[in-house]
Amino acid sequence: MRAYDIIDKKRKGLELTTEEINFLVEGFTRGEVPDYQMAAWAMAVCLRGMTPRETADLTMAMARSGDMMDLSAIHGKKVDKHSTGGVGDKVSLVLIPLVAACGAPVAKMSGRGLGHTGGTIDKLESIPGYRVELTAQEFVDQVNRIGCAVVGQSGNLVPADKKLYALRDVTATVESVPLIASSIMSKKIAGGADAIVLDVKTGSGAFMKSLDDAFQLAAAMVEIGREVGREVAAYITDMDQPLGLAVGNALEVAEAIETLRGFGPKDLEELCLALGSEMLRLAGVAADAEEARKMLTRALHAGHGLQKLIEMVEAQGGDSSCIRQPVKLPRASRILPLPAPRAGYVQHIEAVEVGAAAGMLGAGRETKDSQLDLAVGLVLRKKVGDRVEAGEPLVELHVNDDRRLAEVEARLLNAFTIGDEQPAKRQLIYGLVTEAGTKRFDQ
Amino acid sequence: MRAYDIIDKKRKGLELTTEEINFLVEGFTRGEVPDYQMAAWAMAVCLRGMTPRETADLTMAMARSGDMMDLSAIHGKKVDKHSTGGVGDKVSLVLIPLVAACGAPVAKMSGRGLGHTGGTIDKLESIPGYRVELTAQEFVDQVNRIGCAVVGQSGNLVPADKKLYALRDVTATVESVPLIASSIMSKKIAGGADAIVLDVKTGSGAFMKSLDDAFQLAAAMVEIGREVGREVAAYITDMDQPLGLAVGNALEVAEAIETLRGFGPKDLEELCLALGSEMLRLAGVAADAEEARKMLTRALHAGHGLQKLIEMVEAQGGDSSCIRQPVKLPRASRILPLPAPRAGYVQHIEAVEVGAAAGMLGAGRETKDSQLDLAVGLVLRKKVGDRVEAGEPLVELHVNDDRRLAEVEARLLNAFTIGDEQPAKRQLIYGLVTEAGTKRFDQ
Repeated sequence: MRAYDIIDKKRKGLELTTEEINFLVEGFTRGEVPDYQMAAWAMAVCLRGMTPRETADLTMAMARSGDMMDLSAIHGKKVDKHSTGGVGDKVSLVLIPLVAACGAPVAKMSGRGLGHTGGTIDKLESIPGYRVELTAQEFVDQVNRIGCAVVGQSGNLVPADKKLYALRDVTATVESVPLIASSIMSKKIAGGADAIVLDVKTGSGAFMKSLDDAFQLAAAMVEIGREVGREVAAYITDMDQPLGLAVGNALEVAEAIETLRGFGPKDLEELCLALGSEMLRLAGVAADAEEARKMLTRALHAGHGLQKLIEMVEAQGGDSSCIRQPVKLPRASRILPLPAPRAGYVQHIEAVEVGAAAGMLGAGRETKDSQLDLAVGLVLRKKVGDRVEAGEPLVELHVNDDRRLAEVEARLLNAFTIGDEQPAKRQLIYGLVTEAGTKRFDQ
Repeated sequence: MRAYDIIDKKRKGLELTTEEINFLVEGFTRGEVPDYQMAAWAMAVCLRGMTPRETADLTMAMARSGDMMDLSAIHGKKVDKHSTGGVGDKVSLVLIPLVAACGAPVAKMSGRGLGHTGGTIDKLESIPGYRVELTAQEFVDQVNRIGCAVVGQSGNLVPADKKLYALRDVTATVESVPLIASSIMSKKIAGGADAIVLDVKTGSGAFMKSLDDAFQLAAAMVEIGREVGREVAAYITDMDQPLGLAVGNALEVAEAIETLRGFGPKDLEELCLALGSEMLRLAGVAADAEEARKMLTRALHAGHGLQKLIEMVEAQGGDSSCIRQPVKLPRASRILPLPAPRAGYVQHIEAVEVGAAAGMLGAGRETKDSQLDLAVGLVLRKKVGDRVEAGEPLVELHVNDDRRLAEVEARLLNAFTIGDEQPAKRQLIYGLVTEAGTKRFDQ
């Protein structure tokens, strides 16, 4: 078997065999298939596509390229959750304890982030003492004891995906549904999930700009799940403006706590209930999504989710008084309002620009080695559809270092569109793709 | 400007600007654009194509990547000739002296070959003493004095094409009309040609297997010529069986001499007259192809072409007695007939297999460093349509080393299809593409 022939076959639009895909992925991981061959292949895949069977084979070949987590010692069906990423997305911080409080075990490995803010792990590190590294035994024991654990990715997980993603990133071959789908799914499968709930974001702040592309990606991931025997449910949700109000690390933890108290932003709460319903359904804890939603709502209002978060933080060595009194979380030295330049209704908030502004304040990493400032970030005071008067704050800036402040403010002002007409309310959830099919939700 | 964006643009099927193509080719030549980016780009070109303007820009960017020959000191319009390659193709050996004898200057640089036999330069080296390296001044002076010269490629000609071709060869990105067309044309333009006559081969023994692909490649090269101000004429000709009878180095020189004497195989003679007519027309030596053909036929029958070959060999230090008495050319120690296994008509001769057999006898290079045996090769005794009796020789094998003889014989027997019916005569020339348009010739 030769890499050349496999590239040639894909260039011609033919379907590769399982053996061919394994040969390519294994050879690439070992450094025997050079970058230039893999880049040519990736471009051929971008333009020719892959069948569901090929996509599933690629997913499994990448999942098997490194360590495969064995979570079988954890009782119950392990449902993982993944978001394709967006600005202000602190869903995991709410969802994990809430779902665990309802009886579904959550054993989550989470990455650090590049971009506007850190990842879930970075956010949790704003809680003093929180240990993101547990041994495999500690991890399993904690989930069995209290129902959930969130740790950093450890070990040699999906090296093929890491290497291929780095190559795609410099060869303009990122935009391919089968390549994106297999990249996400390989990590979830290597992470040991029995079932997976996905939040596929769409809109100006998301990777998938168009609704159709988002539905396509969701369908591709559900299809991979079907092929490899992992049940998958994928919501398509809005990322045309930031989710919730807070964008930053400690600020997002504080907002998650507020949400678990029942006082969070309604879009964040609603999304957590929707994703949680599918998690409980797939875990077999609820008979259907309707029952699951009732369980989640009850747990939220009874404070069981918040209690579970406190348990998890304590189990991982964190200072749980920060959860009870979020004012004890890291705080920026100054909070500056950004006044609205005119009166009117907020028509649009460009999520990517808001994220970039938060990143410039120090909430995100520009390179792998950048240092995060966990305290800084933004809190939106107005969202799309809100009325604002001239001079009223649009955003609160939580600032420690004001060297780039003028640039951040200009960027934020530019991110807001204010007009005279009240815009139509934006839809939050566009649809749900499961093995049973695709449901589109109308506004 | 970033290579990433240029790849991304081509992936989306958009047209690149001249500046973008220059940036990419120059960066790649200098080693600043890495192989993996160039491979991804080449695959995007294979699947998205290039416009005539982009193809012309790529051609010129590659031509300018190294030395550009300046042939302006040679009087008259310099017409170069190029064949896409085939088995038994010794056209240049006949054509160059014949065209020069009619008054069109030919200043030809020619490569060595990888494959079934050497290139034109290797073949000429079977003439003892023939110098394939001339100084630029000697080259120009010789063409001005006697009308023609054939030398090896020297200097740093089209390094971008060399590098890109090597990469395409291992990334399954060879099969692309704009990439093939620009590769060929960049070499001709860097070689200093004012006008170019192309022989685009089609059939089982050619790179372009289908007639449509061959016409497409021909049209692309004529179009490049139009864009960059070089007149181009491209014949589409048959390579479904070897051209002429001889396959080997000295054997092909001998056949070229026979042809210049007027006793060569008719397919070879006809092809030389056709290509030569366009060369004389483009050089402005003949008013039209019809007049040109008359001039060539007269020169051939008067022995002027042979005389010109003798002059050229002498000018380049070769032993011209070999031209007058071809028995003095290198000869193999043994000539072995390959008897026909059955009686019938030759239906098909698989050219690639005949070429491979000649290569195995030592007529071709397997790697860049292989040593050629200039004496060995094959002479076909039967071609498609010929009647053969059982036991009658199909092929003469000219052999020095019989270690792989059994394999060569088996391969040759396999290359011949013999059947009961006399097959229809194969067409030699399928069409001609010039700036005036495409002419298809019916059988």
